[in-house]
Amino acid sequence: MDFAKGHGTENDFLILPDPEDQLDLTASTVASLCDRRAGLGADGILRVVRGDHAWFMDYRNADGSVAEMCGNGVRVFAHYLRSRGLVDSDEFVVRTRAGDRTVLVTDWDEQDATVSVGMGPATVTGVSTARIGDLSLAGLGVDLGNPHLAAVIPGLTPERLAALDLVAPEFDEEFFPAGVNVEILTELVDDRVHMRVHERGVGETRSCGTGTVAAARAALADAGLTDGAVTVTVPGGEVTVTIAGEESTLTGPSRIIATGTVQI
Amino acid sequence: MDFAKGHGTENDFLILPDPEDQLDLTASTVASLCDRRAGLGADGILRVVRGDHAWFMDYRNADGSVAEMCGNGVRVFAHYLRSRGLVDSDEFVVRTRAGDRTVLVTDWDEQDATVSVGMGPATVTGVSTARIGDLSLAGLGVDLGNPHLAAVIPGLTPERLAALDLVAPEFDEEFFPAGVNVEILTELVDDRVHMRVHERGVGETRSCGTGTVAAARAALADAGLTDGAVTVTVPGGEVTVTIAGEESTLTGPSRIIATGTVQI
Repeated sequence: MDFAKGHGTENDFLILPDPEDQLDLTASTVASLCDRRAGLGADGILRVVRGDHAWFMDYRNADGSVAEMCGNGVRVFAHYLRSRGLVDSDEFVVRTRAGDRTVLVTDWDEQDATVSVGMGPATVTGVSTARIGDLSLAGLGVDLGNPHLAAVIPGLTPERLAALDLVAPEFDEEFFPAGVNVEILTELVDDRVHMRVHERGVGETRSCGTGTVAAARAALADAGLTDGAVTVTVPGGEVTVTIAGEESTLTGPSRIIATGTVQI
Repeated sequence: MDFAKGHGTENDFLILPDPEDQLDLTASTVASLCDRRAGLGADGILRVVRGDHAWFMDYRNADGSVAEMCGNGVRVFAHYLRSRGLVDSDEFVVRTRAGDRTVLVTDWDEQDATVSVGMGPATVTGVSTARIGDLSLAGLGVDLGNPHLAAVIPGLTPERLAALDLVAPEFDEEFFPAGVNVEILTELVDDRVHMRVHERGVGETRSCGTGTVAAARAALADAGLTDGAVTVTVPGGEVTVTIAGEESTLTGPSRIIATGTVQI
């Protein structure tokens, strides 16, 4: 099986080219490939399948389960398509289970690219609270196809954020019946925030694409704004989120570091 | 840079062929390659260098530091040499910083092999005690080039061993001034033991080659024996250790799962 390995802000993926949709990728094969010691290791798999009008991103989580979308994964997927000549323009559409996403790939070569992804509306669903250890949070519920609670902590410094013990949050299960991804962030200063994220069912991750969009929405709201561009620093790197009315755009890096063949 | 990825009982390695010794492999490059998200990810690197009379295994830890030997790594290294045609017989010598090791590669193909490695003497250095959480241990100090404390726990079942909270051990720092690898194991039954290991400077690992030899030495001693063959089950799989006087041999699996090129 051919593969490439890449990451978007240290959310890492195995890319499996399968243009004719011939791979029988079972949950157990996915789990074996993503095993970080017995396999190649990754947070998820991006199977590359030719579609009628656009390439389809078949995204799987490391445990083998099917996922709808992945904001970091779609950047790496788009970078792969463009740098391998599978598309012939910088702007194109990627099909995902959550619908079509328009992407723009710039500054690209075989290894690196900057990719912008249309993420759809970042819809505020209300305000809610949570608790992480001793820390009480009040934040904005934001829906991006998946549920988020993005909490700006007044006076929080990047250093104190980094030192925080980010254990599993206790949240309002009536407000978030399907669980919630929780973002903790600093206040907006010079169009920048620092953020850490606890993903439902996973724990803390080094980056979460939809989480950075939720964080930008909350940081803007906290500053009395609805639209704007926010640079979000996460443990795995830096992305920029632009919110303009009903449209949000996530721009960030993709890096493809290896290609080869794997036998599992 | 060409690479292969393999593992021995889930101790995983990147193999970098460099026959003419031309790669300038800095500590920072090693750390980047072994990073499990931004890199390819591995416990260590095996650089394959042609020597005067035998291939040299340049072993590096994931943090970039140089290491003398690795009992699991040398199996994968020998499997690579044999299956890629870099040696033309099943029995040969591998040069390591800890000296020459004789290896025997059997049942091999491109992906799988069984490899026996001469590990030198397993020297008993005395008896000592340690504490892991609430558990008090008494065991045998065993030197294999690196220091071990291998403790047979009377009546311990594989289930209770698996459930143990293997936190960092408190040990006798006069007896082990350079730190110690601690093995906890069941009593010898039908020539088998189950073992878990806490490696100094690392924490619990899924397998430790020298640790399985120390465990076999302790299990035999606990049963009133000096020589014998012991099958040791570790979280990452199963190996067999044979002790005959001054010579110990470690036999276990190697699996090479991927090959390709990497750019870091």
